[in-house]
Formats: sequence, C-alpha cells, structure tokens
Amino acid sequence: MSNPRADRVKEAAKLAGRSARLKTGLFLAEGPQAVREALLAHRHAVEAGLPGVVVEAYATEACLQRLPELAGLAAGTTLRLATDEVLAAMADTVSPQGIVAVCRMQSPTLQEVLATAPKLIAVMCEVRDPGNAGTILRAADSAGADAVILTASSVDIHNPKAVRSTVGSLFHLPVVSGVEFAELADALRQAGITILAADGYGSQDLDALQDESAVRRLAPGAEATGTSGPRLENQTAWLFGNEAQGLSDAELAAADFRVAVPVYGQAESLNVGTAATVCLYASARAQNR
Amino acid sequence: MSNPRADRVKEAAKLAGRSARLKTGLFLAEGPQAVREALLAHRHAVEAGLPGVVVEAYATEACLQRLPELAGLAAGTTLRLATDEVLAAMADTVSPQGIVAVCRMQSPTLQEVLATAPKLIAVMCEVRDPGNAGTILRAADSAGADAVILTASSVDIHNPKAVRSTVGSLFHLPVVSGVEFAELADALRQAGITILAADGYGSQDLDALQDESAVRRLAPGAEATGTSGPRLENQTAWLFGNEAQGLSDAELAAADFRVAVPVYGQAESLNVGTAATVCLYASARAQNR
Repeated sequence: MSNPRADRVKEAAKLAGRSARLKTGLFLAEGPQAVREALLAHRHAVEAGLPGVVVEAYATEACLQRLPELAGLAAGTTLRLATDEVLAAMADTVSPQGIVAVCRMQSPTLQEVLATAPKLIAVMCEVRDPGNAGTILRAADSAGADAVILTASSVDIHNPKAVRSTVGSLFHLPVVSGVEFAELADALRQAGITILAADGYGSQDLDALQDESAVRRLAPGAEATGTSGPRLENQTAWLFGNEAQGLSDAELAAADFRVAVPVYGQAESLNVGTAATVCLYASARAQNR
Repeated sequence: MSNPRADRVKEAAKLAGRSARLKTGLFLAEGPQAVREALLAHRHAVEAGLPGVVVEAYATEACLQRLPELAGLAAGTTLRLATDEVLAAMADTVSPQGIVAVCRMQSPTLQEVLATAPKLIAVMCEVRDPGNAGTILRAADSAGADAVILTASSVDIHNPKAVRSTVGSLFHLPVVSGVEFAELADALRQAGITILAADGYGSQDLDALQDESAVRRLAPGAEATGTSGPRLENQTAWLFGNEAQGLSDAELAAADFRVAVPVYGQAESLNVGTAATVCLYASARAQNR
C-alpha cells in the first residue's frame, strides 16, 4: 500500500477517536513492541479457540527486514506491506517505527473475570491521565495481577496514548472497561474479595500490613500482634483514585479498609502510579506469586 | 514588569539551556507547586544560616490573589509583579500558571553528603529521561532517602522538564550531580555503604530479601534461613541504570549485590522509575523509617 488517502488508511486513522473505536470495537497498536505483544496475544487466543486479537497489520519493508521475527509472528494474520507515508497517516504517533496493527478489543465482562476466582485485581476509579493508566496496568502485569478494571469515568485504555503507555501489557491480562462503580463494589463483595482503598489518609499502614503478612507466612509461631487489619494474602481488589481528588467518598465508603502507603520524606503525596505499584507489589509478595 | 524583551527576562529564559545554568549556577522553578517548595526550602536554608535558594520570583497579580500564601512565603526574597507575557517569555512551559522563581542550585559535594552518615541513597547511572529522573527523585523523597546522586552521564536534573517532573522533591533532599562513577563507587565503599544494583537479571530476589528482613526485625527468634544476601536494614546505595541498556558492566561489577525486582506476570521488564520505587520502599521499610 502506498496511497495514504486510501479508505483503509482513513478507517484506521479514525480509530484515534473514541466514537470510531466504540462503533467498530477496534483500536490501533503502534510500533514494534506493541504489535509484537498483540501478535503473541493473537496466537495464544487462536490456540485457545478464542477470537483473534489482530485484524490486520501494516509494516514497511524496512521494518520487516530489521525485525524479521515480526513477519514470523504475523503468520496466520493479514500482514500488508505499506509505505512510511501510509503508516504516518494511520498512526497517532509521529513515527510508528514502521509497523501498526488494527486490533479487536478483548472486552471480558466483570462476571467472566470474577468467575476465574482472581486473587489480585487493580481497579482504576476515575484515573484520567493515559500515562498513569498505562503505568498502573503495567504495574498490575508485573505484579502478576489477574485483571484490571476501569470504572466508567476513567480514561479510555484503548486511546492511542494509553495503549502506548502500557508498553504491551494491555495484551497480557484481562481488562474490563466502563464498569459502574456501585455495580462493581457489589460484585466484588459477593465474590468474597476484600476491597482495599489506596488512600493517603487511610488508617491502615501498608508497611505494617506487609510486615504482619511476612511474619504470618514465614514465622507463624511468632505471630503475636493480632491486628484487625486486612490480610494481604487474601483475595484483594485495590482501588486507585483520580489524580487530583483521590477516591470519592462513595468509593472510600465501599472499601473494606483504607490503606496508606507511608510517606517517609517531605514529599506531599505519591503519584497514583507510584502508589499503585507499591500496593500491588505488596499484595503479590504476600500472595507468594 | 511588562516588557517581555527586558534583559532580566532574557536572562531567565536562557536558564532553559544547560550552558547558562552552568555559567550562572541558577535554574528556573515554574508554577505554584515548584515555587512554593523552593520558597519553603529557601526559608529553611536561611534559618539554618545557609545560602538562600530563591534569588528572585516573578508572579502575576492574578496568581497572588488566587494563592495569597505564596506572597507570604516570599517575604524575605525579591518578589516582582509581572505580566503573563513576561512569564511566558521566561518560562519553558507554555503556561507557568502565573509564577516562576530563579533559584540557586544547591550543589552539595559527595563528601558533604557522605559525612552525614546517610542510610539510604538513590544513584542514577546514565538515567537519560527527565521524567524518569523526576520519578526516581520523587520516590526517593517519599521513601525518606537521605540523598540522590546523579552520575556525570545522567540527565541534568535542573533542566526545566526534569525540575517539573520532580514536583518539588528537588528542594527536599540533597542532590549531588555530575559525579564520576568510579569515584562514587570508591567513596561509597570507603564509607561502609552497601552498594545494590537494581538489575532485572540479578541473582538476589528483592521479595525474598524483604521477607528475611521482616522476620529478622519482627520475629528474631524465628530466624532460620541464614542467607548470604544483603540486609536491607544496612546503609544502602541503590544503583539505577539507563532506560535502554540498564546498568553497565562496570556499574554491575562495582555493586556488592545485584538485586532483581521480581516480575510475576508477563511484563517483560519494569520501567526504571517503577523498579526504583519498589527498591527504595523496600529499604525504607526494612530501615523502619
């Protein structure tokens, strides 16, 4: 393909907008790393008898020469050669580094996710910045979380900037979007999952919870301090709030406990991405992943 | 001030460039949050008989009306009224939100920092992205680290984007810049500080080290597994490496131990800012800050 004004190119470019994504159920992955993860996820899905992830991919000849393994991975999907001009016209990034893929949103339902008996879930409540959403999704992936959930008022994780900032993690674990918070809280409670609010003003100190958990797991005889706080070993859903306002009163009220990541220095507060990383890793460690 | 072409404005604008910063020893803090932290640091420094931090500040009348506490904080420094045009001409940001401050770099030497018997130090080795440098500095502040050190080949922490991304933490703890790595490693070793390399391929698992530390601190009788790994309770300097290459062979060789933040999911690796956050918090917790 060499015509940047072709219909196919225009259709792909439209996926930068939310309405086109909602209408088609498609989104764009840009650049070698994201496309590679999309192709791997596609292969796993097809092998499991599930709908594929990648609808079609477009790459320059130079890109495929530089990264021949991508062509191998693309076997079984439609891979089209395209010029740099075509890719630039499709992509949101100035330079998509020679490859983009049109992907089908995997949209598991909340019930499907809960049916898998998840041990660790990250919930974004009105997280608005695509970069923060990406950081949290990536941290959830690193910590081995079973799912990520975005409430209806959070950023669209399939927007190009958010997809980019997940650095491929979007394709690694189930992501449920557009959930109403009240419905979510009910469902988590019914599933027996402890809801922890990450809240700078929380009365529970994450470091104390981690210490208690370590002693329970590693030196059970020594367990002395019976606390009434949450056990990080349990099935857990962490709530992470809006960048400016934090969690709302309703979100805080729905949580079983409010947990603060302690701030030891003079920093006023933690960035939500940083706090989420520390919280999710604390759970992962306690759950012996 | 209303003339965006005044010499004073041009001098401030030049501070966006490294050479002007090196020549003058000055840099620019932009926006209410950074300027407030600069003014607070200035007050603490003056009270301690040290050179001041803020040389002069420029604000719009509207900004001071909106945030009158800034005018109070600026007592004892030179605060000049300026127009939006003047601020836009000075600042690197499109909109500095009505206030900027010309600040003097606090440049403690490595020896001065080591003389304070620091328990926790974050070292950036060829960290190149200003956003990552800011994230690491902010995490170090949150974790209560005693100092941050940047090797000579790292990003200039006083460049406008880096200053912005520290969200005020630049003014909270000693930051030593431009240190040669070999000299640093020698000095840390002579000071008896354990050097830990944050390295995805490290043989030491951070979670195991944290668990051992928790048991030692909380259930000393139960200590069973004598390992030969580092004790997170000890005086520690963490090395964080370049975004693409990680730590160099020389940097790895200088470390007493190589420690990996475990990756439990499918994520390929951790962003250096995320890894640094997890490492610094692990030390903070072990050191009972």
